[in-house]
Amino acid sequence: MDVRPDSRIGRNAMLLALLGNEKLEPVFIKDLRLQGYIYCQGKTGSMETQKVVAAIETAARQNQVIEKDLYRETHALYHAIMEALHGVTRGQVLLGTVLRTVGLSFAVIRGKPYSSEEEGEWVAVALYGTIGAPVKGSEHEAIGLGINHI
Amino acid sequence: MDVRPDSRIGRNAMLLALLGNEKLEPVFIKDLRLQGYIYCQGKTGSMETQKVVAAIETAARQNQVIEKDLYRETHALYHAIMEALHGVTRGQVLLGTVLRTVGLSFAVIRGKPYSSEEEGEWVAVALYGTIGAPVKGSEHEAIGLGINHI
Amino acid sequence: MDVRPDSRIGRNAMLLALLGNEKLEPVFIKDLRLQGYIYCQGKTGSMETQKVVAAIETAARQNQVIEKDLYRETHALYHAIMEALHGVTRGQVLLGTVLRTVGLSFAVIRGKPYSSEEEGEWVAVALYGTIGAPVKGSEHEAIGLGINHI
Amino acid sequence: MDVRPDSRIGRNAMLLALLGNEKLEPVFIKDLRLQGYIYCQGKTGSMETQKVVAAIETAARQNQVIEKDLYRETHALYHAIMEALHGVTRGQVLLGTVLRTVGLSFAVIRGKPYSSEEEGEWVAVALYGTIGAPVKGSEHEAIGLGINHI
Amino acid sequence: MDVRPDSRIGRNAMLLALLGNEKLEPVFIKDLRLQGYIYCQGKTGSMETQKVVAAIETAARQNQVIEKDLYRETHALYHAIMEALHGVTRGQVLLGTVLRTVGLSFAVIRGKPYSSEEEGEWVAVALYGTIGAPVKGSEHEAIGLGINHI
Amino acid sequence: MDVRPDSRIGRNAMLLALLGNEKLEPVFIKDLRLQGYIYCQGKTGSMETQKVVAAIETAARQNQVIEKDLYRETHALYHAIMEALHGVTRGQVLLGTVLRTVGLSFAVIRGKPYSSEEEGEWVAVALYGTIGAPVKGSEHEAIGLGINHI
Ligand SMILES: [Mg+2]
Ligand SMILES: [Mg+2]
Ligand SMILES: [Mg+2]
Ligand SMILES: [Mg+2]
Ligand SMILES: [Mg+2]
Ligand SMILES: [Mg+2]
Repeated sequence: MDVRPDSRIGRNAMLLALLGNEKLEPVFIKDLRLQGYIYCQGKTGSMETQKVVAAIETAARQNQVIEKDLYRETHALYHAIMEALHGVTRGQVLLGTVLRTVGLSFAVIRGKPYSSEEEGEWVAVALYGTIGAPVKGSEHEAIGLGINHI
Repeated sequence: MDVRPDSRIGRNAMLLALLGNEKLEPVFIKDLRLQGYIYCQGKTGSMETQKVVAAIETAARQNQVIEKDLYRETHALYHAIMEALHGVTRGQVLLGTVLRTVGLSFAVIRGKPYSSEEEGEWVAVALYGTIGAPVKGSEHEAIGLGINHI
Repeated sequence: MDVRPDSRIGRNAMLLALLGNEKLEPVFIKDLRLQGYIYCQGKTGSMETQKVVAAIETAARQNQVIEKDLYRETHALYHAIMEALHGVTRGQVLLGTVLRTVGLSFAVIRGKPYSSEEEGEWVAVALYGTIGAPVKGSEHEAIGLGINHI
Repeated sequence: MDVRPDSRIGRNAMLLALLGNEKLEPVFIKDLRLQGYIYCQGKTGSMETQKVVAAIETAARQNQVIEKDLYRETHALYHAIMEALHGVTRGQVLLGTVLRTVGLSFAVIRGKPYSSEEEGEWVAVALYGTIGAPVKGSEHEAIGLGINHI
Repeated sequence: MDVRPDSRIGRNAMLLALLGNEKLEPVFIKDLRLQGYIYCQGKTGSMETQKVVAAIETAARQNQVIEKDLYRETHALYHAIMEALHGVTRGQVLLGTVLRTVGLSFAVIRGKPYSSEEEGEWVAVALYGTIGAPVKGSEHEAIGLGINHI
Repeated sequence: MDVRPDSRIGRNAMLLALLGNEKLEPVFIKDLRLQGYIYCQGKTGSMETQKVVAAIETAARQNQVIEKDLYRETHALYHAIMEALHGVTRGQVLLGTVLRTVGLSFAVIRGKPYSSEEEGEWVAVALYGTIGAPVKGSEHEAIGLGINHI
């Protein structure tokens, strides 16, 4: 299947999160970079929402997807993460507080999804994994995507 | 890239919504059916949330993904749609009421995602598209996934 | 069964909404009045949330449960109605906007539920009925209770 | 007063929670069982939402209202509990986080509320009690009902 | 600038929170008291929502803005605080749970904002400060106002 | 009282909305401009949330506070408006749908609130007015502030 990255930053991010490194052919990653995207991937699992937020923020900073010394970039990323968590949690952005846990793969991509140069850079946060009771197997899949200008 | 459907019903649904019919190789669809999934796909765009809900429900009924004369199936699907809309709307399940519109591809899949036969059938609703101002181009991508036992 | 009103204003309101006039023995109503409660009951069904709110407000005013010329009483009732609607809608206080409708019995009770005279008057709004698709039978029960000082 | 259980599973659950074992005549319980319902009752009080969820889940499993080894039943119950908690909390499903606590009676009923056999089994979770500041007496009543197909 | 308190209780409260004691001329405070308002001011900072709620409640009680032995007054204040926190948190009334913290100035005012004596007393809670990551400088301003009859 | 604009963009916006043109001394406006802020002010009243959003967006575009041909600026403003509306509506971003209406003064300010030049431009949307039943006088004050990087 010809699954290639294109200008759709959210789709690219979700493919990264859904397919993971193991499934993605090198050509996907190469294409992504050729188009000027920078990105990072990771995994995080917790009953504490703040740990999920922290894991994504830390990965994005350590991989230079966002500039850690600029608050405006942290702010852009934070709201994108919150929006992605709405998709995962579907109503109340709560995990352990309502007795559930997540195991998530994430991808954070930064780039220029619009053809006009003036639209500048945007960030997409994609989450894919499971949500459920803190009991192995008592869970179903969950997905979230957050997008913000940066 | 070896993008094949597997037991992960949500991932399958999201790939259908993300990649669309044009990108999906026949082998993906064949594999999906071989694994016992039934599904439908469609597109819907509106400023009215209820029209989005209705478009997905109608497609799922007309394609026999859910049994239209059973309320329990309608109920399962309705909640899966609502959960998917949380991902798309990220906070308030509102479109025109807050001056925004969506253009979405959707997929509804039904099948048995768990290895134990007793876990029975589940439904996944995946949404992928754009959300934004009612002005062409003033929009970004949005994604939602809802999963329910049926 | 010895179902009698007591100082629990919310329980009294919910029993009125659940059991309706037909089931309630005259002694229940008499007891309710002897304890100083004033109340009204009614039914409302709509896909428009604002019509449900209006029906309850109108009944409460016409039956002198609240004083229509005092904003503070309208305010107390309005928030109690909104809280009750949270129980009925469970997440988004929306009906037709998300393609669902309600058929509700309601009760509004006013009185003094606390033993200390200084705690003054409170109002309870109880809702009981069905919520679901705008198709007969495609619905399940829903309940809400809102309580406020007046 | 002739308060009898009938096909309305939510009303039955709420009567159990509202009236408790002490008020319910044996004929109510007998009638409930004759109609094929299985149920459990309990009490729980906490500032931690997850403890309320856990108490209801544990009671439902220990009383065989749901099958503890089937995730689909846990999933059905979990969402019914969450929906019931929306009625109790009315906006944010939070207790101690926003400095409030609950003392709740609960009932979980399982049965067939629809006349068509194909509609199958459903579960209703009813909550009745008080919510308020962590100070005795600084509280008012709260109610919630969640219903799901199982 | 002629910034004087008037019958608008919310505006008065917000000016107190925004301008603080240091900026407010004695004539503002004098005018406020002449118009029959009682009030308190304070500061609170925390990652725990319940500590913010507690700080405001404690200040209001210790300064006799509300009567600590009357639940109806605690209830009125609590809901006003919750409403103000909605403005500060904008979606989910959560702080540390979603990895953010606040530093807030608050004002609680009690008085009669309506010309009709029968409308009685109301309370306004105003919050002004910053919200952001638990890192100095990684924050922006936030504001909230809650108003309730008392 | 020495009410002067400073680097606090949200405070400046809220003072504009609270005090209005009539109360603000020319020196306030002059100072605001000297500090590099551009802003607009206006009034809007409606039972329809989308009309409130549209009124603010239109004013911001017509007064060149945001560049109307850049989606990233529209996006920044839209989210700031939504956040401000959370403060005004306190739970559900709904007006007429839940039978209430608003009359609001608004201010939109754009500028550089952080000392580091690299933090760039931000936008603040402040709302102040009344919310209540669609009956003159049956209303109380409401406030909202939204802030975003632009
Ligand atoms: Mg957006
Ligand atoms: Mg679920
Ligand atoms: Mg309350
Ligand atoms: Mg339902
Ligand atoms: Mg109010
Ligand atoms: Mg922010």
